[in-house]
Amino acid sequence: MSMFEGFVYVRACLYPEGVVLPAGDAAVSVWDRGFVFGDGVYEVVRAYGGRWFRMKEHLRRLRRSLEETRIGFDELDVVEKAAGALQRVQELEEADGLLYVQITRGAAPRSHAFPDPPAEPTVLVALTAVPDFSEEVEKGVAVVTREDFRWHRCDIKTIALQGNVLALQEAKEAGAKECLFVRDGAATEGSHSNFFGVKDGVLRTHPADRRILAGITRECVLELAREAGVSAEEAAIGGEALAGLEEAFLTATSFEVVPVVQMDGRPIGDGKPGPVTRRLQEAFRECVRRETGGA
Amino acid sequence: MSMFEGFVYVRACLYPEGVVLPAGDAAVSVWDRGFVFGDGVYEVVRAYGGRWFRMKEHLRRLRRSLEETRIGFDELDVVEKAAGALQRVQELEEADGLLYVQITRGAAPRSHAFPDPPAEPTVLVALTAVPDFSEEVEKGVAVVTREDFRWHRCDIKTIALQGNVLALQEAKEAGAKECLFVRDGAATEGSHSNFFGVKDGVLRTHPADRRILAGITRECVLELAREAGVSAEEAAIGGEALAGLEEAFLTATSFEVVPVVQMDGRPIGDGKPGPVTRRLQEAFRECVRRETGGA
Repeated sequence: MSMFEGFVYVRACLYPEGVVLPAGDAAVSVWDRGFVFGDGVYEVVRAYGGRWFRMKEHLRRLRRSLEETRIGFDELDVVEKAAGALQRVQELEEADGLLYVQITRGAAPRSHAFPDPPAEPTVLVALTAVPDFSEEVEKGVAVVTREDFRWHRCDIKTIALQGNVLALQEAKEAGAKECLFVRDGAATEGSHSNFFGVKDGVLRTHPADRRILAGITRECVLELAREAGVSAEEAAIGGEALAGLEEAFLTATSFEVVPVVQMDGRPIGDGKPGPVTRRLQEAFRECVRRETGGA
Repeated sequence: MSMFEGFVYVRACLYPEGVVLPAGDAAVSVWDRGFVFGDGVYEVVRAYGGRWFRMKEHLRRLRRSLEETRIGFDELDVVEKAAGALQRVQELEEADGLLYVQITRGAAPRSHAFPDPPAEPTVLVALTAVPDFSEEVEKGVAVVTREDFRWHRCDIKTIALQGNVLALQEAKEAGAKECLFVRDGAATEGSHSNFFGVKDGVLRTHPADRRILAGITRECVLELAREAGVSAEEAAIGGEALAGLEEAFLTATSFEVVPVVQMDGRPIGDGKPGPVTRRLQEAFRECVRRETGGA
């Protein structure tokens, strides 16, 4: 029996027409540039009651990642069709789920520069269950900070994530749920999440420049804060502000809005999820209900 | 017919015992962490007349990369045996060749932190012909500089190379053969090579810290320079020194020592390979003959 859940859609040199097959059987060439260079990009989209939350925004960001990395793939309809096919074959048409979409520059004899002529991009789409994040959402989590040693194009949702992997693992072993990266003294983002803090009653998060990924949940939370009359700004949080936050939280497609109650072993505020965080968690849930009818 | 040359050795969840098979048929799981996270490391070793040049040093560096990324793989004998098997099956026991070795953290359901329990690392070993670099070696090449935007652990020979790929492609389109990265005003290394310059008669190359990969050819050239009485130091080359180099060259396992005769459109020295470069090219060739009996 395979350790891998469910089915995936793959279009690659081994399956040029694209195929839905059990995840444990799905393979790509060892010369896929995703495998030998991390030369690809990805997205994660969440379904609530079978309906995709902000699919259009995710596909727009995917298109941007493809453009920035110059991977010639514009068949985003293939992704949407594969998502539907995976819902049907797994009988998840009305269920929650996480869609994973990865596009690489395709398979070609190994050479750093782009294949010439271009290879056919590899497409992987998978739909899996949503892990249970209820404890994190309710009680909050601890983070540890570390110097942001990743590349300087964190605005690209690259699959070349070894730095994120190593940093998160270290955080986990230090008893935290996420690593918070700090560059030039200012908090950028988590290894797989965006970071928000509240200082002097003002909600702050790093501007969406090349130092962070412009999260879809991040953007949604900023909208909701403005709607709710919470003062919010896109500004880096560093130095004393970072050390003296009243509240903090992480956002991600998978776990939505998760309070941060401890940083580097010290409590944030009174060590419990704060009122602004709670308000935005609720507003996010309400937004999801409004837009998808689910959750 | 496959676009891929020769045979490869793969040990992965699809082939748990390890197998030698035609490169076009070799595949890994779509959930291999090499494919979804760039979570692996690699080496390239060159054979001269069938004999590996400094295999021991390459395996030592591979072990270091594995330790730094905490990939639990210590069967380096498997790599050497696979190398031998690929020489035999391809009848390259006495031929030149490039060995590609890649180890990833293995296949597991996608989650950033290390799989727990650990997955079995994936092993890929391939042996291909050496491209013809004689023109580059003879006439030299042009490079273009660009800000080093990669991660801050360039001492690890990671497969997460999307930054290197994008930079080299840009260089290629600007008419150059290599991109020369510059960090904080000082030249670090190329996208897949080390960089040396001669200034005031002194050979200089970036110290082997976290900003560069400690190249095996680089180390060998430093030894040879000392033997030949060429004054050499491991020191960053920046600012005016970089703009006013008398000579420059690149080193790599694949193309050995290649003169750099132009940088950002301006000639280096008189625009021809310089005497120190020529001397070290010759010394390197002699060293290879001494150690392998080949070339």
